[in-house]
Formats: sequence, C-alpha cells, structure tokens
Amino acid sequence: MIRILMSGCNGKMGQVITRLSSQFDNLKIVAGYDKNDAISNPYPVFTDLKSCNVEVDVVIDFSHPSAFNDVLDFAVSRKVALVMATTGLSQANVKALEAASGSIPVFFSANMSLGVNLMVDLVKKAAKVLENNFDIEIIEMHHNQKIDAPSGTALAIADAINSVLEQKREYIYDRHSRRKKRSPSEIGIHAIRGGTIVGDHSVIFAGNDEIIEIKHTAMSKEIFGVGALKAAGFIKSKKPGMYNMNDLVESM
Amino acid sequence: MIRILMSGCNGKMGQVITRLSSQFDNLKIVAGYDKNDAISNPYPVFTDLKSCNVEVDVVIDFSHPSAFNDVLDFAVSRKVALVMATTGLSQANVKALEAASGSIPVFFSANMSLGVNLMVDLVKKAAKVLENNFDIEIIEMHHNQKIDAPSGTALAIADAINSVLEQKREYIYDRHSRRKKRSPSEIGIHAIRGGTIVGDHSVIFAGNDEIIEIKHTAMSKEIFGVGALKAAGFIKSKKPGMYNMNDLVESM
Amino acid sequence: MIRILMSGCNGKMGQVITRLSSQFDNLKIVAGYDKNDAISNPYPVFTDLKSCNVEVDVVIDFSHPSAFNDVLDFAVSRKVALVMATTGLSQANVKALEAASGSIPVFFSANMSLGVNLMVDLVKKAAKVLENNFDIEIIEMHHNQKIDAPSGTALAIADAINSVLEQKREYIYDRHSRRKKRSPSEIGIHAIRGGTIVGDHSVIFAGNDEIIEIKHTAMSKEIFGVGALKAAGFIKSKKPGMYNMNDLVESM
Amino acid sequence: MIRILMSGCNGKMGQVITRLSSQFDNLKIVAGYDKNDAISNPYPVFTDLKSCNVEVDVVIDFSHPSAFNDVLDFAVSRKVALVMATTGLSQANVKALEAASGSIPVFFSANMSLGVNLMVDLVKKAAKVLENNFDIEIIEMHHNQKIDAPSGTALAIADAINSVLEQKREYIYDRHSRRKKRSPSEIGIHAIRGGTIVGDHSVIFAGNDEIIEIKHTAMSKEIFGVGALKAAGFIKSKKPGMYNMNDLVESM
Repeated sequence: MIRILMSGCNGKMGQVITRLSSQFDNLKIVAGYDKNDAISNPYPVFTDLKSCNVEVDVVIDFSHPSAFNDVLDFAVSRKVALVMATTGLSQANVKALEAASGSIPVFFSANMSLGVNLMVDLVKKAAKVLENNFDIEIIEMHHNQKIDAPSGTALAIADAINSVLEQKREYIYDRHSRRKKRSPSEIGIHAIRGGTIVGDHSVIFAGNDEIIEIKHTAMSKEIFGVGALKAAGFIKSKKPGMYNMNDLVESM
Repeated sequence: MIRILMSGCNGKMGQVITRLSSQFDNLKIVAGYDKNDAISNPYPVFTDLKSCNVEVDVVIDFSHPSAFNDVLDFAVSRKVALVMATTGLSQANVKALEAASGSIPVFFSANMSLGVNLMVDLVKKAAKVLENNFDIEIIEMHHNQKIDAPSGTALAIADAINSVLEQKREYIYDRHSRRKKRSPSEIGIHAIRGGTIVGDHSVIFAGNDEIIEIKHTAMSKEIFGVGALKAAGFIKSKKPGMYNMNDLVESM
Repeated sequence: MIRILMSGCNGKMGQVITRLSSQFDNLKIVAGYDKNDAISNPYPVFTDLKSCNVEVDVVIDFSHPSAFNDVLDFAVSRKVALVMATTGLSQANVKALEAASGSIPVFFSANMSLGVNLMVDLVKKAAKVLENNFDIEIIEMHHNQKIDAPSGTALAIADAINSVLEQKREYIYDRHSRRKKRSPSEIGIHAIRGGTIVGDHSVIFAGNDEIIEIKHTAMSKEIFGVGALKAAGFIKSKKPGMYNMNDLVESM
Repeated sequence: MIRILMSGCNGKMGQVITRLSSQFDNLKIVAGYDKNDAISNPYPVFTDLKSCNVEVDVVIDFSHPSAFNDVLDFAVSRKVALVMATTGLSQANVKALEAASGSIPVFFSANMSLGVNLMVDLVKKAAKVLENNFDIEIIEMHHNQKIDAPSGTALAIADAINSVLEQKREYIYDRHSRRKKRSPSEIGIHAIRGGTIVGDHSVIFAGNDEIIEIKHTAMSKEIFGVGALKAAGFIKSKKPGMYNMNDLVESM
C-alpha cells in the first residue's frame, strides 16, 4: 500500500484526486497539505508541512507555484518520491526539481493525462508500422473560445509521429488554397471549433481500403487526476531521477 | 407495379440497378436497351429502341450522352416518364429535357444519391432549428487522388445551410493562420484526404454541452442506383414537369 | 423582446438559464422567483410571487413541485404563457396544466432538450425516406452507473421510427444468441456502458454502399436550459393550448 | 531489393498485390506463377514452377490449396522464404509448413491484414495501461448477410485483451435483460448489422471523463495484399522458423 501526501488537497484537483483515490487498491491518501483547511477529508490535513507527522511514501503536488519550495524541501528531507503536477512553474523551479532528482525520484510531465500520453504512444507505434502505405491526418476539436489552432496537443502528436518516421512529413493546415493531389509526405492537421467541446484528438491512418483511427476524448480537466495517481504508483519504488508520463506509459 | 425500361442496362450502373430492382416490391424492369447485348438479363434487351414492343411506365437512362436523343424521343413518343441519370449532358441536352417536360414528367438531378440529398435536407432542417445557439462545422473525407478541396458536395451543403439561415455565415478553411476565437458567423469546412476513402461528409452542430452530427458515408458509386429506382417510383404518376432529388426527399 | 420571469432562478438550472439568456437577442429575464434569495442576479428576485410587480410575457419554471400551484396561479391570473420544465410533477399537476391551457399557452415536454427532440424529428424524416432499402440500428452510450438498458431515449427513438414506417420493425437487443442473417424487419438496439459518459444516441441507416448516421451527444444536463429558452420564444404569441418540444421543432 | 515470386499472380489477390507492389521501394515482383496465363503482367509468368529460371528471394502464395505442394517444394528446394496467404489449408498442409520451417523462414497468419493485427497490438497495449480505471467495450459492424455474431475478429480482440489483463473479464452481449450497473469485470461486445458494411471493429476504453477509441475500418478484402507484401519484407532475412503477423507488428 502506497501512502500518499496530497499537497493542495482542498483545491479542485486535490478534491478530484481524493475522490478518485478510493478506486485504487494499491494506494491511499494518508495526509493532506493545504493553506485552506475548511474542507473535511478522510485524512488529516496540515496547513504547515513542518507539523506533518504522518509516514508517507509519495507526495503528489497539485497546488500552486508559491508552495513549490516547501513541498520540494519536504520530499527531499523525508527522502520520498515526488509527483509534481502543479502548472506554471518557473525555470528555476524546474532546475530545482532536476537537482532534487539526484536524491529522490521526481515525476514531472507537461501533460499529466494518462490517456493523452497513451494515445501518443499508440500513434507512434502505428506510424512506425504503417509508414510506407498510409496517409496520416490529425483532427482536433475544441470549444469556440480557444484561441490557438491547432491545439498544442495536436502539434505534439504530429511531432511524435515525425520522430518515428524515416521520411519526415510536412504539416498541411489548408487544402482549400491548393489544387493538387495529396502527397504522401503530408500530415494534414485540422482544427474544428464549436460550442463547449472540452477536447478531442483523433489520428487517422488511411491506406488501401482500410483505416485505423486512434481517438482521445476529454470530457473535463479531471483526467489529470488519474494520471497523478498512476504516477504515484509508478514512481514509488524507482531510483532517484527524473520521470515523466511517457516513461510510465512505456513501462506498462 | 411500375414497369421500367432500363436504358444502358448492360453498363456498370445498369447492371447495379438490375440487381437492386429485385429489392423493390413496387417496380420491375420489364425491358432493357443497350447497344451491347452480350449480357444475359432477366428481361428482353433491345439494341434499337424502335423495335421495343414492351409496355413500360418509366424509362431510367444510365447510359451515354450519345444515346440521349433516341432515349428522349422514345419517352416523349410513348408518353412515359423519364429518369435521366446519365452524366456529361450538354446544355442543349438539358434544354431538350426542359422542353420535353411540357408533355412528360422528367426527373433530372445533379446528384442521384438519395442519401446525400436526404442528408442535405436533414442538415437544412437542423440549421433552421439550431441557428441561434450552435456552431456549424463541415468535415469531408476523400481519397488521396482527389484534386479539389473541399468537395463540391461539401460546398453544396454549406450553401444549403446558408440558404435557410437568417444571418449568412462565412466559410473558413484554415484556422492555423489566425489567432482568435471562433466567430458564430463562421462555417468551418475541413477537407481530410487519405488512402482510398470513397467519400464521407459530416456536419457538426456544436452547442452548449451538446452536439448533433449528421453524417453520410459512401462506400461506392453504386449508391446512385437506389436513387434512380426511387426516382422512378416517385415520378411515375406525376404531371408533366421537371423534378429532382430534392423534390423526392421533401415529398417523403 | 420577450420578458421572462424565471421561477427557480437561484437553483442550478435557473442559474444556467440566466447565463444562457444573454445569448438570446429576442428575450430577457426581467424578474426571478425563488425562496432562496442569497444569489445576486441581474434582475430583481421575489421570494413571493404575490409581491412581483414586474410586467412579464412568459414564465419559465425550473423549480420544484412544491412551488407548482403558486407558479400556475401566477401565470393564469396574469394571463401569461408558461413553460413548465420542473420534473417530478404529479398526475394532478399535469391535469391542472391541461385545465390552465384553456386560458393560457402551456409548454410541457417529457424531454426539454432541443437537440434530442430535433434528433428524433430528423430520424423520423430519414426513416420515411429510407424505409425500403436501409437497415436501422440504434447505439446509445451512457456511464457505468446507469441501471436501465437501453436508455428511455433510445426506446423513444425506436418507437418514433416505427411510428412512421409502413411495416413496423422488431427490436433486437442481442445477436449473440442467434445464428442467422439480419432480417430487414429488425431494429438493432445496443447499449454501451462505460466510465462517466453523459449520454450519446446514434441512429445508423445502412444501405447499399452508403450509411447515414444521425448522432446526439450530451455533455451535461445543462442542455435543457437552451430548450426552455427556445420554448419561451416559441410559446409567447401562441393561442391558449398545450404545446411540447416536438411542436417547437416541427415549427422551425 | 527483395525479389518476389507471386504465386497465383493472375487471381484476384495476385493482381491486387501486383498493383500494390509498385508502391514499395524495397521489393519487386520478378516472376509470377499461375495455371492461367491469360493476363499480361510486368513480369514473366510461369504455368509450371519447374520451368521458372528466375532468381527470387521470397515466394508469396495467394492461390489455391491444390497448388500448395508445388509451391512449398519450390520454396524449400530453392531455400527461399515463403509467405503462405492461401486460405482453406488442411491440417496436413499446416504440418508440412511447420516441417519446412526447419529449413526456410515461413510466414503464416490467420488474418493477413496488417491493420487488424496492428489494432490488436495497440488494444493490448492500451488495455495494460488502462486496466484499473477504464471500462472496455467492443463494437463491430458488418453487412446484413453475416450469420455469426459477434465476428471472429471481435472475439479475438476480446481474448487478446483478456490475455494481458491481470483480472480476466467476462463477455457481455446483451444488457437489455439485466437491470443493474455495469461491473468493471465486463467486456461489452456489440454486433451491429446493416447494409453492405465490409467490416468495422472499434474498442472503446471509457474512464473518468475521458475515452480512448481504437478503430479499424475495412473497405474491401484487398487489405490482405498490403499485409502479404509487408510480410515478404519482414521474412526475407529471417532465420528458418514460423512467423506470423503478430511477430511482424511487434517487430516494428
């Protein structure tokens, strides 16, 4: 049983993870840390890590960059693994994580969604197998308030595909302005926008009379919670070092 | 029971329609017309329409523009309805059809697929109902040899949507080059290309936490056969005049 | 401009509708009614309808059966239209609505989602057009806590299809236990269950080398809010009588 | 450059492979074998393998069990690799293949589609990663003449999933007759039937607010041709032994 300290336990993601943790047999939140202790939890909550007297194996941090130093100090001094899921860290923070990874295992990933990272892993596998005979197209759908197009994740998927192809392909965003056949050296990337769609990403491999499609649909930002709990299980018994979601997916 | 003369019966589409006709209880091919009589059919085949002594109610023509005049003369002189499904007709041919429609019912449509025309009808209905609160996006998929993008059908769908909206919307083909929120006055149109995909068209209406999607998938060009047989049933008892696939769909 | 009294304005759906109403140019919430007045709204809120001195055109009620009589009395005495969207009404409540519909227009529907009702309308249209040559299958997806299968909406869709077909079809839930070809007289109904899926309904019309699919995806229960606002716009200038979401969709 | 002898070159699949081979840079059909030599090909065709005087590296056999012994003898005597893609082999044929695999590499697979085998590989990977928190459902679609349900491929996918799960799951074909929540120990399997659909297989992993879907669509039986050519490239430089499509996919 992996004993977890949930840092930021009374924030939105902290509460999501508290609820999700009951679905995991191999781990348990045994303590929380939050400046705000107004919420009742099934574990003791400390407003100051120095007063935390509970034995833990892994710290999951889903709080705020302002808590970064206290959380990192706690993990290093206790020699326990750290899953860092707080967004908006500074370059200095990241360097501090890397320094700490000399003495403890640190999990840190740009995208904490297990599903998105798994999707990228599957797409890379498919791209390698299908390279010579299949056209690749990426379709992403998001809500009508999103400013960037295509999404960062869609571009990351395209880059991941290119990283495994022997012949790199060019990204094509608009076929309207061209009048020619599709070249095998293209990756078409299409950004659908509408309503309140949270986020879909689909990769289509279209070949001679067959299509393989790999699709991820996000219904809320809560999906990062499962990723953090999986990360805790993954990192607990690792040697000191830096780990990320890709390591986790490839290990499974 | 509607008695059909199948003109071009030994061509590819003629044979498709011969096979499909057995699924229709209300009609029967009672005669064929084709220069080539090398194929055995469950009905007599004439290589010259003048020698055709069989009573018919409707002529379906899926042959070649070179046969146009003979077929039209036959329908007019016999005073039977004509479903004209041959492609590549000249302007003069179309005028001759219109002239003939003074004395016989003539069915003539740019796209003989019942499914595509029904889709357009459904999309128009949906666009009217959802105008104020839904974003509309069109996604089409075709094989990698197709030169034009988006497809003519995708543009026809977009035009059909605009024809029923109170506020006309602008077609957007590429969001990559813009950095701004989607405007409600857009219709996004996306052309996916890959492999040997025959032709998919999908319209997405994305609103507040709900999506309606209407999608048509073509697996071969045989879909025009069902359309022609439906047209024969539709036109048989009509008054002289010009009719098209949209009339058929709206009548049902 | 339609002036709306929002009854139950401080409940979850009342707040959703308050937010959504700003997207409608043709209507405005000018007053609220709620026992709980702890929330600040851009309109005056009354805890007792008797003290409401604001001129309104339509009452939308999304509150609780316990408020039913006060709301109905208000609408009848003011001679304004009523959109009744509260669930869990008694048979006596429904009878009272019907009695009131002698003097005011009353909108009351089993499912207030515009999208689901539109989908049913589109599916009926498609079923009529495609009856003779297409197989119909219904696929619904919901979360893993749902007890009934198939969903009530899936069955309502199947019934709506049968209501327009000349030959009624039989519902088939399992093909695993049979070893035979599909009969054209079937409607296959499939209940997918998994994760936290809110609710998808898809109808597939599969014919000779073409497929038409009509799909509705719900991302939250907020979709009923748009339906209520559309209903207010629809009912405002109607004669006294009972109206429902189907009337609204067919009118558009 | 891999030099291929195409056995059954003038059959349907032989012609498909002849056409597809021009898309592969690393291989070339240098000779054909077929009892029927009525078709003109860009390589010499022999009606008797004994008279074949062309140097080859791999034999692809897509012919008929009656040619099995001649083809196997040719491959063994020339010490060249053999891709055996002919269906309907007897138990004795399979044993003969295994015996031959002592001296030459033999590729033999129940399903020669690269796409289906890749899909199974991806699904297994996903099932391992997502085991603890995702519900798994399989949906397959086929034409209305198919007698068995679910398809053999759908069951093979389910078995492949179970082969990597720590807790084996039960196959559920019908939820209509039960009134209870979905158990995590289920795999739902749904057989859609309609029209002329060639064959779709989709696996859905549904978790907390996210879904991963892996889908394969077959548009014709020609997809086995690409598989055979990939197999030729894979097996050419292998040691003697038996190989199958799964080995190929896992090697990439």
